[in-house]
Amino acid sequence: MKKIVIHITSPDQQAIVSSYSQMLASMQINILNLEQHVERDDSLFFMRISAEAKHDFRVSSLEESLDTINKQFNASSSIYDIDKRLNLAILVTHESLPLYDILIKHKTHEIKSNLRVIISNHDTLRSIGNQFNINFKLIDINSDKDKGNKQLESILEEETIDLLVLARYMQIVPSQIVKKYKGKIINIHHGFLPAFKGGNPYRQAWERGVKIIGATAHYVTKDLDEGPIISQDVIPITHHHSIEEMIASGRNLERNVLVNAIKAHLEYRVIIHGKRTIIFNK
Amino acid sequence: MKKIVIHITSPDQQAIVSSYSQMLASMQINILNLEQHVERDDSLFFMRISAEAKHDFRVSSLEESLDTINKQFNASSSIYDIDKRLNLAILVTHESLPLYDILIKHKTHEIKSNLRVIISNHDTLRSIGNQFNINFKLIDINSDKDKGNKQLESILEEETIDLLVLARYMQIVPSQIVKKYKGKIINIHHGFLPAFKGGNPYRQAWERGVKIIGATAHYVTKDLDEGPIISQDVIPITHHHSIEEMIASGRNLERNVLVNAIKAHLEYRVIIHGKRTIIFNK
Amino acid sequence: MKKIVIHITSPDQQAIVSSYSQMLASMQINILNLEQHVERDDSLFFMRISAEAKHDFRVSSLEESLDTINKQFNASSSIYDIDKRLNLAILVTHESLPLYDILIKHKTHEIKSNLRVIISNHDTLRSIGNQFNINFKLIDINSDKDKGNKQLESILEEETIDLLVLARYMQIVPSQIVKKYKGKIINIHHGFLPAFKGGNPYRQAWERGVKIIGATAHYVTKDLDEGPIISQDVIPITHHHSIEEMIASGRNLERNVLVNAIKAHLEYRVIIHGKRTIIFNK
Amino acid sequence: MKKIVIHITSPDQQAIVSSYSQMLASMQINILNLEQHVERDDSLFFMRISAEAKHDFRVSSLEESLDTINKQFNASSSIYDIDKRLNLAILVTHESLPLYDILIKHKTHEIKSNLRVIISNHDTLRSIGNQFNINFKLIDINSDKDKGNKQLESILEEETIDLLVLARYMQIVPSQIVKKYKGKIINIHHGFLPAFKGGNPYRQAWERGVKIIGATAHYVTKDLDEGPIISQDVIPITHHHSIEEMIASGRNLERNVLVNAIKAHLEYRVIIHGKRTIIFNK
Repeated sequence: MKKIVIHITSPDQQAIVSSYSQMLASMQINILNLEQHVERDDSLFFMRISAEAKHDFRVSSLEESLDTINKQFNASSSIYDIDKRLNLAILVTHESLPLYDILIKHKTHEIKSNLRVIISNHDTLRSIGNQFNINFKLIDINSDKDKGNKQLESILEEETIDLLVLARYMQIVPSQIVKKYKGKIINIHHGFLPAFKGGNPYRQAWERGVKIIGATAHYVTKDLDEGPIISQDVIPITHHHSIEEMIASGRNLERNVLVNAIKAHLEYRVIIHGKRTIIFNK
Repeated sequence: MKKIVIHITSPDQQAIVSSYSQMLASMQINILNLEQHVERDDSLFFMRISAEAKHDFRVSSLEESLDTINKQFNASSSIYDIDKRLNLAILVTHESLPLYDILIKHKTHEIKSNLRVIISNHDTLRSIGNQFNINFKLIDINSDKDKGNKQLESILEEETIDLLVLARYMQIVPSQIVKKYKGKIINIHHGFLPAFKGGNPYRQAWERGVKIIGATAHYVTKDLDEGPIISQDVIPITHHHSIEEMIASGRNLERNVLVNAIKAHLEYRVIIHGKRTIIFNK
Repeated sequence: MKKIVIHITSPDQQAIVSSYSQMLASMQINILNLEQHVERDDSLFFMRISAEAKHDFRVSSLEESLDTINKQFNASSSIYDIDKRLNLAILVTHESLPLYDILIKHKTHEIKSNLRVIISNHDTLRSIGNQFNINFKLIDINSDKDKGNKQLESILEEETIDLLVLARYMQIVPSQIVKKYKGKIINIHHGFLPAFKGGNPYRQAWERGVKIIGATAHYVTKDLDEGPIISQDVIPITHHHSIEEMIASGRNLERNVLVNAIKAHLEYRVIIHGKRTIIFNK
Repeated sequence: MKKIVIHITSPDQQAIVSSYSQMLASMQINILNLEQHVERDDSLFFMRISAEAKHDFRVSSLEESLDTINKQFNASSSIYDIDKRLNLAILVTHESLPLYDILIKHKTHEIKSNLRVIISNHDTLRSIGNQFNINFKLIDINSDKDKGNKQLESILEEETIDLLVLARYMQIVPSQIVKKYKGKIINIHHGFLPAFKGGNPYRQAWERGVKIIGATAHYVTKDLDEGPIISQDVIPITHHHSIEEMIASGRNLERNVLVNAIKAHLEYRVIIHGKRTIIFNK
């Protein structure tokens, strides 16, 4: 049996669920799970269906059937092959913990993807790539920003990267890459967005005297730290926490939040809707 | 428009969603929300549909249509009228906070029900009933357990109670009432079940030196503190917390957890499945 | 025995603890609890001592002894009588839940203070004042801002208010009152500060698509929502939460966070240090 | 300067803080941080002092001075050298995540110790030891329990182990080792103790239908899963979580809770008091 995921977005109206589910039944595609959501503000309907099809199933037939119903509802849909592993690249600078966590969970198959390459503007974390037998490539951003970013773009193309993860990468990804990989770049911000945007969020948090700190994984858009949020988590702190202790406590958060976001993306559990995201359960 | 909720339980199999949704569409009943869940262990499928029907809609017609499909799938179903307010009784002893919270949230329409009566084996909380103009009835359990429990049973019948809430009631509800109101009695336990069953859970927690305490709302069954859990929450504590401070911190938890459970029940978001519960989102 | 609390602030240096503790021992004042904190950034030492003195103990003698040591360390100190109840006023507009919670916890002696008056710019919550037998005063802010604020100031004076609590008061407290009651006005903001300052924080949070919402209790300063934070808490939300559901979920947070802050203040567990606060345990 | 930590346990009484702090001041030992706690139940006073002494400071002199005061108060004390790294051994079976986390945090100096050896009854995790260049030793417990446990005991002796960490070790540590290393063996239990003791806690939790799962780090005593708890944490789950998904979610918890406990132990922030622990802040 072949496992697929279908995303459907449509203006909210009657009989959507029955029309799509009936069509799938008629094609002998078995619904394993169906989740829906209506955004009341703009009356949009979102649905994620995970389903099982026979092995002789042809995507093009399903696409045709979907198209017919899509036209009726003014909807759009996407089909994803859940067993096809996406190509993953990780961008890092100095922080080792989120990188380690992705590598470990890739190795234990919790993150199901082809981890193709670690890319960095520093050599600091090369040894970790070696530890896990993952290709590590240095880009010359520190000496020549343009050259470095061209190298980055080339690597992403050569490796046919489907998802680029910024695991505490300390550089801005240039706008042409952001544009080209729209909805395919995930960043971890070490603060509770929208509080503490930009640099040194832990220092900002310390100075403001907050009692809780957080981390935020979001898609990268052209506006810094403004992209749609996928996952957030927080921990309580007290006046006892120095900035350094906040950083240490935050590290565990960051990696968990980032891995959650990567998994949600790879399992096609995310639909981006403007600045908001619909995150399906399973 | 008339709002209804439908629960469907069935052995897991193909085409369930499409069959039911198609039938609803054919009856011009509009699905507002559909959530499903499959218990893999015993291959059972659970679905909650909230829907909108025209005002001339007849429940009996829907029942007939459901029956036809139910037979096909060996399923069972229930229809609930979301606008019909259930009759609520609250059983209390000395603790005021959970009672206050139910009364306040009943008054502000967050808890949508007919709050018919507060019943107690002590007079302690009568003044709170007066404050909120809710009927308060004393039962003679302390002097004569059997007499008191017969009074309780009579009150529940007279007031045609649909949901009985034990808001820190310090007595055991007798088995004939538990049997009669199966799935209709909710208790708040001031501990993180299944840890700390029975009396004095905060003392038990203090002695065991736990670093987190909790509260648990569950349906009452014949086995003490063993019924299906609806809602739980926890807070961290430290060695600084005396038992009294644990009790004070726990009170806020208890009321929140209990009100969550009451709302889930009144909104027909709960399906009981053995010792487990399926809690739908909305 | 008489219970007191002493706050000491001093440049960090050797022998502070021993000097003060020795002096207290020599006066037969028994330390019940001592907590200290050093802010590394500006090398400041903060200490809170809760202690027990004999009933014939004279505050002036302790003040003299403290002064002697204070001079030696270039420190400052305050003595508080833990049994003297402070006069409390609550400012409200329409939201009932935080007001209810203060009234309930005042009644059950969890909040130990003289609750003198509820003040409001609307009549909405008068009945709650009546329910709990607390004086309710209307100020004419809606028709005449200056007049209303003068009424507010007069009431605070007449009632010799020590702590003013803004329990979802929808008006700006004028700067002369803020100045006069510096460190004595606590506000609850229904957002996770510093995110979502100003009006409609839940709408802001919804639009930004955050996955966690919060509430913040802070001292009021001349800059809106910029005062030192006393207490914060958060709850997870999902895309399912409409703004209205976020508001409903947030209400439980708000009241808990506000009551935590009030209790910390009344128990002299707070020292304000610029925009930061030191919150002692007990 | 030399950093030390002093633990003092004493019947609660007047002038303890002043006596010890005065003595330290007289020896020119500067208190960096002082935390105290009184257990009201048995009137015991606990204090942790972190302090800085000159390099020519002699431990024996401090011991003598402490002894004099200890006698006066019927107290006991211990002195720890914060810069002396303890020898650490890790016992594992199949689970890689907690082992990885200890290795990573050892490498990044968040866990300050001499990680001497990984010991296991299976070869599964040997490659991880190799990845991090840590000695990995197999013990023959699976074929011959007695032989294996003797090997374990020998390794602990040869490596002069100060702290033994059970990072999801699936065997019982024999009582003679538990006795010999009293207060020096930390276990991570993958459940919220005291709920779900023994094997398969996630299955137990799934069957009971709890809405929150947890992990518990505790000292090992002769009674299984009954030792003093050092650290606990929890995460919410829903009916959607299969046992496998609970296990996956729990892994992140387990490693965080275990590392927290190890750090607390190595920083001498723990005092065991019967089944309870006092965990100091810093």
